[in-house]
Amino acid sequence: MTVVALSGGIGGAKLALGLSRVLPPDDLLVVCNTGDDFEHLGLAISPDLDTVMYTLAGLANRELGWGRHDETWSFMATLEALGGESWFRLGDRDLAVHVERTRRLRAGDTLSAITTDFCARLGVAPRVLPMSDDPVRTRVHTDEGWLDFQDYFVRGRCAPVVRRLAFAGADAARPQSQVLEALADPRLEAIVICPSNPFISIDPILAVPGMRAALAARRAPLVAVSPIIGGRAVKGPTAKMMTELGLSPSPGTVAALYGDLLDGYVVDHADVDEVTGIKPQVAMAQTLMTTLADREALACTVLEVASALREQR
Amino acid sequence: MTVVALSGGIGGAKLALGLSRVLPPDDLLVVCNTGDDFEHLGLAISPDLDTVMYTLAGLANRELGWGRHDETWSFMATLEALGGESWFRLGDRDLAVHVERTRRLRAGDTLSAITTDFCARLGVAPRVLPMSDDPVRTRVHTDEGWLDFQDYFVRGRCAPVVRRLAFAGADAARPQSQVLEALADPRLEAIVICPSNPFISIDPILAVPGMRAALAARRAPLVAVSPIIGGRAVKGPTAKMMTELGLSPSPGTVAALYGDLLDGYVVDHADVDEVTGIKPQVAMAQTLMTTLADREALACTVLEVASALREQR
Repeated sequence: MTVVALSGGIGGAKLALGLSRVLPPDDLLVVCNTGDDFEHLGLAISPDLDTVMYTLAGLANRELGWGRHDETWSFMATLEALGGESWFRLGDRDLAVHVERTRRLRAGDTLSAITTDFCARLGVAPRVLPMSDDPVRTRVHTDEGWLDFQDYFVRGRCAPVVRRLAFAGADAARPQSQVLEALADPRLEAIVICPSNPFISIDPILAVPGMRAALAARRAPLVAVSPIIGGRAVKGPTAKMMTELGLSPSPGTVAALYGDLLDGYVVDHADVDEVTGIKPQVAMAQTLMTTLADREALACTVLEVASALREQR
Repeated sequence: MTVVALSGGIGGAKLALGLSRVLPPDDLLVVCNTGDDFEHLGLAISPDLDTVMYTLAGLANRELGWGRHDETWSFMATLEALGGESWFRLGDRDLAVHVERTRRLRAGDTLSAITTDFCARLGVAPRVLPMSDDPVRTRVHTDEGWLDFQDYFVRGRCAPVVRRLAFAGADAARPQSQVLEALADPRLEAIVICPSNPFISIDPILAVPGMRAALAARRAPLVAVSPIIGGRAVKGPTAKMMTELGLSPSPGTVAALYGDLLDGYVVDHADVDEVTGIKPQVAMAQTLMTTLADREALACTVLEVASALREQR
């Protein structure tokens, strides 16, 4: 393993796809946030893991930003007709992942083992692993009180004003062991923090005891990509959340949040005026990933920054 | 409630549909076998209840004999691709029933309450109830040992040789209370045993303590329809099972199995030579239900037999 990428959902998955196309498959490990995992309709759902898996498998629904592009919706239509909960949309094919994952978890398999098997069956070459096989659940303290993450994110459409976040279960969670091994691997060439929401995608990963220490003891440069472009997030509530938390939605704010973890930082050209005072080494690039070529180009930039940082050492 | 019909899956559901079309909706209660219910993929599946519900809702898949006609199969295809268990076919729409039923059962609702709500939502006018809200599980002792019912029926395609049957949980099960009320209702005009498999569709109902006594104390004639035509079952393993159990597959054998419960018995014209010695009053009819008119005609015959029996009292 030469590159370990920490990722949330959509934005992170885009860069992970770029990395998977410019690296040999054995060289990439994508570590996914599971803080937004939840049980719904009796099923174990792992939205970020699935988004990354579907994206790397070429199955992602790019219009929706979640789920599969080859999806049908008979289940959901019938569930609604039966008076079932329909606020969290589950496609028929997507559902098979949740049903089979839930069955295997109940049979005693780990989320890691299940994910690895699913990825193999879906033709995903790079390794994809959850940050932990233990449950960590992001909770959001809002002006409406404490909300479970998906109640805030999907049911509440991120409308409630965020005051703080908590990661229930994190204290007792153990980092996924292969992730720790990869981070300690002498062959490691780069650690990448994908352009994901720092509060709800990356912080849950960092909240797993031992993960931050493993990153602090890194043998390879850590390069992050700003999830903020021109004061806004490409998708999702990152900028809104920053404002609500009393922070300015800028690349510099995100860099400050990651602090000493960052060796390199890739910021969009649009933010050229925002980079003064950012501590890690900054590279400017197009960070908006619209096309597949954009994903590959950004992945190359990230790897070049890491390479340059290695040479400086 | 003036008519109570005991039913298994396909054959029973056909007659139940016929009855539902010739009776006012409030006059019919269909009591379904739940002995073939099972948990699969973490889901509570009630095949006979669903076959009756789908049939009465006009949603049944008549080619398959189970499931819905407006079905899609994305879930199953994906589950297979993920290495999941695919021997029990679950359509995308059918799946919504199982997922929502399982959710409500876990939330503490009874199978009766869930079935009543589903029927209302699917536009099923007659009442449909399980024989019991307590679990009863048919098990089949075969030349391959004891098998859970669906392992025998679906996975094993009824190939194993049947030696005996058992209804696990029946001893502790309570009859559905509205079923008992309906059977004790002074307005009751007929009890119908549908042309279902006596061993695996009707016996589990009779195995629920109190059910046989309630039928024995009946205020209205009980009329059964033979599930055997010309020595064969229309569908399913009834005749094969009878032979394996050392019984001759004939209408008379089925009548003998029901014994004193029967007041009237409807036998197919094909079996005119088989009716000598059958104890209950026999009526000949076309019992093969191919068209909707066939279902209605057989329902009328059954009700006429009951009416004639009432007048004889």
